[in-house]
Amino acid sequence: MNKKAIVLLSGGMDSTTLLALAQSQQYDCYALSFRYGQRHQAELDAASQIAKRAKVIQHEIIDLDLSRFGGSALTDHSIDVPDSHSDSHAHDDNSHIPITYVPARNTVFLSIALGWAETLNANDIFIGVTAVDYSGYPDCRPEFIQSFQAMANLATKAGVEGHPFTIQTPLIHLSKAEIIQLGHQLGVDYAKTVTCYSANEYGQACGVCDACDLRRKGFEAANIIDNTRYLA
Amino acid sequence: MNKKAIVLLSGGMDSTTLLALAQSQQYDCYALSFRYGQRHQAELDAASQIAKRAKVIQHEIIDLDLSRFGGSALTDHSIDVPDSHSDSHAHDDNSHIPITYVPARNTVFLSIALGWAETLNANDIFIGVTAVDYSGYPDCRPEFIQSFQAMANLATKAGVEGHPFTIQTPLIHLSKAEIIQLGHQLGVDYAKTVTCYSANEYGQACGVCDACDLRRKGFEAANIIDNTRYLA
Repeated sequence: MNKKAIVLLSGGMDSTTLLALAQSQQYDCYALSFRYGQRHQAELDAASQIAKRAKVIQHEIIDLDLSRFGGSALTDHSIDVPDSHSDSHAHDDNSHIPITYVPARNTVFLSIALGWAETLNANDIFIGVTAVDYSGYPDCRPEFIQSFQAMANLATKAGVEGHPFTIQTPLIHLSKAEIIQLGHQLGVDYAKTVTCYSANEYGQACGVCDACDLRRKGFEAANIIDNTRYLA
Repeated sequence: MNKKAIVLLSGGMDSTTLLALAQSQQYDCYALSFRYGQRHQAELDAASQIAKRAKVIQHEIIDLDLSRFGGSALTDHSIDVPDSHSDSHAHDDNSHIPITYVPARNTVFLSIALGWAETLNANDIFIGVTAVDYSGYPDCRPEFIQSFQAMANLATKAGVEGHPFTIQTPLIHLSKAEIIQLGHQLGVDYAKTVTCYSANEYGQACGVCDACDLRRKGFEAANIIDNTRYLA
């Protein structure tokens, strides 16, 4: 019998590569996505299609309205999303943390994944945090992941009774180009993934936001053809 | 200016006492409740009334359907809630963890509280875990709380930038009777609180479940009149 894993799946490039990688390692995968007040539905539509094509055992989309708390350009519609032409890494003050940071987002997502993992008797939770992100987002750093894992094993019946959880972050030391090369080898169709902060309802990318910029440069550096549907 | 605090408020005795205590310590309180697939609405109705009477700054009820994952008698309606006459602490196997344990519940609640706290610039999160619970629930133990706090300060912008969070658990070493005595001194009206696992729509308690049993014994031990509306 295969081991079970929860895979956090946003519908973006990193988590789609992550899912393909977990499946290549013979995990039975349960995909978990969140409707947390994102600006657009395109990313979740992509997650659903990707989960279906990958034939995961189960895909759950959890509704959780973090936008009620505000505080991030990704969920608070009164804050502008940064674009790569004006200020490539906008911050809300003098800190190094981007305004697209959503307070405690990965903590919340991992906690809910932990609850599902315990119910399923799954001991592995995959999250697609990467080196590109953890320069800016505190909850993408290895020390956060290690700390979350230690907490998870004190928080749960499974952890206390000797079936500890592992938070798997196989992309954490990879650049965007390396992730694209890995996914390419695993047969990932990146045209199905959505990265753009302002994608339209057809999943087309604006081509000018920070996320589009990072994606474009990733394909260039990986020397792989970028079949993303950019509008600009 | 007063310090801000998030107070996790279920509508039960412990969290209502906790709120009164935080207010007596001059915190500006933001109450946070969850509609997470509980069997009944009475507890949340109680939380709303209690928050209103206490004049909290804001009360949010977050919808989060943990019952989709199953695994607990409190959210999975196919599992019977234990009553005090049959088996006073039913367990699902040979472990010491009650079947009313909801996988990772406090981790999820604290994580969402953390997101709101960061947005509000609140550095204190109050949770009403108690000694009575932590014999059975791993996520009520002091070592879990300490570990969560350490993780929270690695996970967040505020934590990283030198404004650390404290998870406040002032009830953790108190017995039910001591909590009732404390609340009584603080003017808490326990008739407004709901403890019962199977309370009806009017907030009346069954009088026979584990939770009712513990509540009754608490008032007896505290030597304070129990004005709970029991049906049996």
